[in-house]
Amino acid sequence: MKQIDINSDMGEGFGIYRVGDDAAMLDIATTANLACGYHAGDPSIMTAICRTAKIKGVAVGAHPGYPDLWGFGRRNMPFTKDETMALLAYQIGACDAIARSVGYQMTHVKTHGAVGHVIANDPEMAEAFALTVRRINPELRIAVMSCTLLEDAVVAAGLPILRELYADRAYLDDGRLMPRNRAGAVIHDAEDSARRAVAMLEAGGIITESGKILPVAADSICIHGDTPGALDMARAVKARVIEAGWKVRPYTAA
Amino acid sequence: MKQIDINSDMGEGFGIYRVGDDAAMLDIATTANLACGYHAGDPSIMTAICRTAKIKGVAVGAHPGYPDLWGFGRRNMPFTKDETMALLAYQIGACDAIARSVGYQMTHVKTHGAVGHVIANDPEMAEAFALTVRRINPELRIAVMSCTLLEDAVVAAGLPILRELYADRAYLDDGRLMPRNRAGAVIHDAEDSARRAVAMLEAGGIITESGKILPVAADSICIHGDTPGALDMARAVKARVIEAGWKVRPYTAA
Amino acid sequence: MKQIDINSDMGEGFGIYRVGDDAAMLDIATTANLACGYHAGDPSIMTAICRTAKIKGVAVGAHPGYPDLWGFGRRNMPFTKDETMALLAYQIGACDAIARSVGYQMTHVKTHGAVGHVIANDPEMAEAFALTVRRINPELRIAVMSCTLLEDAVVAAGLPILRELYADRAYLDDGRLMPRNRAGAVIHDAEDSARRAVAMLEAGGIITESGKILPVAADSICIHGDTPGALDMARAVKARVIEAGWKVRPYTAA
Amino acid sequence: MKQIDINSDMGEGFGIYRVGDDAAMLDIATTANLACGYHAGDPSIMTAICRTAKIKGVAVGAHPGYPDLWGFGRRNMPFTKDETMALLAYQIGACDAIARSVGYQMTHVKTHGAVGHVIANDPEMAEAFALTVRRINPELRIAVMSCTLLEDAVVAAGLPILRELYADRAYLDDGRLMPRNRAGAVIHDAEDSARRAVAMLEAGGIITESGKILPVAADSICIHGDTPGALDMARAVKARVIEAGWKVRPYTAA
Repeated sequence: MKQIDINSDMGEGFGIYRVGDDAAMLDIATTANLACGYHAGDPSIMTAICRTAKIKGVAVGAHPGYPDLWGFGRRNMPFTKDETMALLAYQIGACDAIARSVGYQMTHVKTHGAVGHVIANDPEMAEAFALTVRRINPELRIAVMSCTLLEDAVVAAGLPILRELYADRAYLDDGRLMPRNRAGAVIHDAEDSARRAVAMLEAGGIITESGKILPVAADSICIHGDTPGALDMARAVKARVIEAGWKVRPYTAA
Repeated sequence: MKQIDINSDMGEGFGIYRVGDDAAMLDIATTANLACGYHAGDPSIMTAICRTAKIKGVAVGAHPGYPDLWGFGRRNMPFTKDETMALLAYQIGACDAIARSVGYQMTHVKTHGAVGHVIANDPEMAEAFALTVRRINPELRIAVMSCTLLEDAVVAAGLPILRELYADRAYLDDGRLMPRNRAGAVIHDAEDSARRAVAMLEAGGIITESGKILPVAADSICIHGDTPGALDMARAVKARVIEAGWKVRPYTAA
Repeated sequence: MKQIDINSDMGEGFGIYRVGDDAAMLDIATTANLACGYHAGDPSIMTAICRTAKIKGVAVGAHPGYPDLWGFGRRNMPFTKDETMALLAYQIGACDAIARSVGYQMTHVKTHGAVGHVIANDPEMAEAFALTVRRINPELRIAVMSCTLLEDAVVAAGLPILRELYADRAYLDDGRLMPRNRAGAVIHDAEDSARRAVAMLEAGGIITESGKILPVAADSICIHGDTPGALDMARAVKARVIEAGWKVRPYTAA
Repeated sequence: MKQIDINSDMGEGFGIYRVGDDAAMLDIATTANLACGYHAGDPSIMTAICRTAKIKGVAVGAHPGYPDLWGFGRRNMPFTKDETMALLAYQIGACDAIARSVGYQMTHVKTHGAVGHVIANDPEMAEAFALTVRRINPELRIAVMSCTLLEDAVVAAGLPILRELYADRAYLDDGRLMPRNRAGAVIHDAEDSARRAVAMLEAGGIITESGKILPVAADSICIHGDTPGALDMARAVKARVIEAGWKVRPYTAA
């Protein structure tokens, strides 16, 4: 049976501020990565998303970032390994309890922004993160991009994994994302993205810039929720994937 | 078998700031109420306390407050019931994951400062809090003072409870604490406090200002950690209680 | 010569967040009340608004609020008089230096949200605020609604004043704003607001719910920048006021 | 006439937290560098220091840092030049208005911690900072260590300058501070520091590790306020300097 999940970052507002249209995205995506109050998100927003996600059967995971609301978690911050683990654990737990407080349960973790880059690409940080998540809850899936050191660390730790494909990004031949400053790195057209998503699912792997196929398992397609046209892209990806015979369901339904 | 717990607030620093001597108190008290980052505490401090508490066998619970570092959580903030539950759940979860991240486990919740007064004395807030904690983790004990609406709510919800006595405060005849602005409300002498603690334990209840005894169960004696002389008082209470034949152990050992 | 100013709150975003369309409003309004980082606004946003305001000849003033980004400064906070003066002074100075850092100058102060209500209606707070502003810079105008205690305090202190009319709010017969929960309290239609603004300017005073005219001087019409339709309302008010023969200019041009 | 100023960082607490003994230091130092709320300090603390400084005739300057209360402004943060200028201007203005709000006036600026290193050593940042301060208030002195790029930038901009000597730090032969990780970099003994201060004042310049004298003008001796023994060192430096015939006065008395 062919099935795939679609995940998107949500709850990235704060107080009266909002980023993206969470209500609409919760009708399209099957998984929500929930901002945890440090780079975005507040307890009320987090609670509201969890409540709706539970009703709609959308899977929820923590999406922790650096304590940097001003910079939306995109600034590199020189936290030590121990500090980084502490601040990530803090947010993961916060998300967990918010979900429970409305009778729901979070089931994965996906790091955000600058701390996400560090966790994905620094071997000591990746390993520490895998072990930290395991100590917090060994059933939590860790979202990873293929071909990152984090993937290796999560596999090595024997933890459940959530492998993502990016429908709106080009890949280098080694499987990493093409840097955003290169032409063609970001795919802006919804139908182009949707076609790419289907092609990668059908090919069973990443399609790189030179057309090579890197066979990788994929559990979920990531759609950025904070870009203009995010909803259109999510709708297009979902429609084309379904047309191609895939069932779009939360990874928790696997 | 006569046994009693001694609890104290800890981790109330932030960054380079410190309040009280946590290292010393962790050698005296058997339970730590851990500030959760909103009125005090940061992820690094929280992690350090949990690590030491685990080694020393000190029980740890979340000590959440209002998001008010400037006011140390002592200012009344007009949060709605839903907001209050969300911000408390957030901090409880944060504390839980921090404890797990070092291989430990938190086992109770005690609200701090201004939000603690609201939760203790507003019937709707008390009930909402008991239900929120139950949804987060029904095994968590909720710390209560006797004769508060919170005690009623926790009992009504059938949740595990952690009943506290205050060694350094006088009680009114209805079992509530004497307001701080009344003469004699606060006991400053360590030995006086220690004698009071022993007397109440021996009497099996609160000794009120008129000398009445209100029979109440007591699981723990609360020692304020942020006052001058806190360590001396904690040492004196512990010594006199042990002399009187009580075993001082974490409530988790009961 | 008939001239009037139009003021609007601006810079109410934070980091990547935005409220209202500041760029468009800076082409319509002649005065910007600039959020100062506590309830909204960050140094980069403040700097950008000041830079544009200088180019467009829009007057800038500080719009300080409570330190409550989560609540957008709308929550009542129990700050003492001294704390309130300190936190307002802090923000006024921050705004002043940001303006100077781009070669501009701020020329008024208008308090925001919950602290604004306190300053407008508590006689001790109003007086303390007038004296605080005078000590900071006696040339700063203080924005006031007519018929508030703040107006009295500013007049008593002999300070320059910026008297506002609200085009989108109904007034009680005593000159105060009709509470928002009463039917008709808020005028949502742009042309209705515009007509009201012209009528009050022509009448030389506030037109109350019963049709009475309370003669008050008016330096500026306030347009809320954070409501849907704010730009349409600002455009309509400006157009109708100009049609009626008024010159719309910053109060600094008076 | 031989006169010298002694400066120390003050107001580095937050809310209930305190660092150093500001009350005692205000009786010894003649200049206070006032934390401005981002890495430490809150409006109430700032106001209290300004009030006392005014009474005691202690000069006050802004001591702005990165927005990093958790890290006390010691973490490197990747702010752009524009962001850095905005966040420094913000704090400088805040300090200025707080001082005015109690009838006093700030007269210099000294950057703190990690942003201080950037401003002192990055030529573009140093120049931007000098120009920013000039636009805010061309009469503000900028505190500099000798032999830094900031000194060059301040001189080039023709701005008033406040040149500091460090009594408790060893200097390299090029006039820069010896890195803290080298043996002998930090002088811990109060009398040793005091002797060094007198020797450098008498020599009319920095005494380097090899015993060379680099002739530099000195307006002020910096005493760190947040180290154990800070008060003893400040007292010793002041006493020995006075014994050697120098008048210890705020730089503003020059």
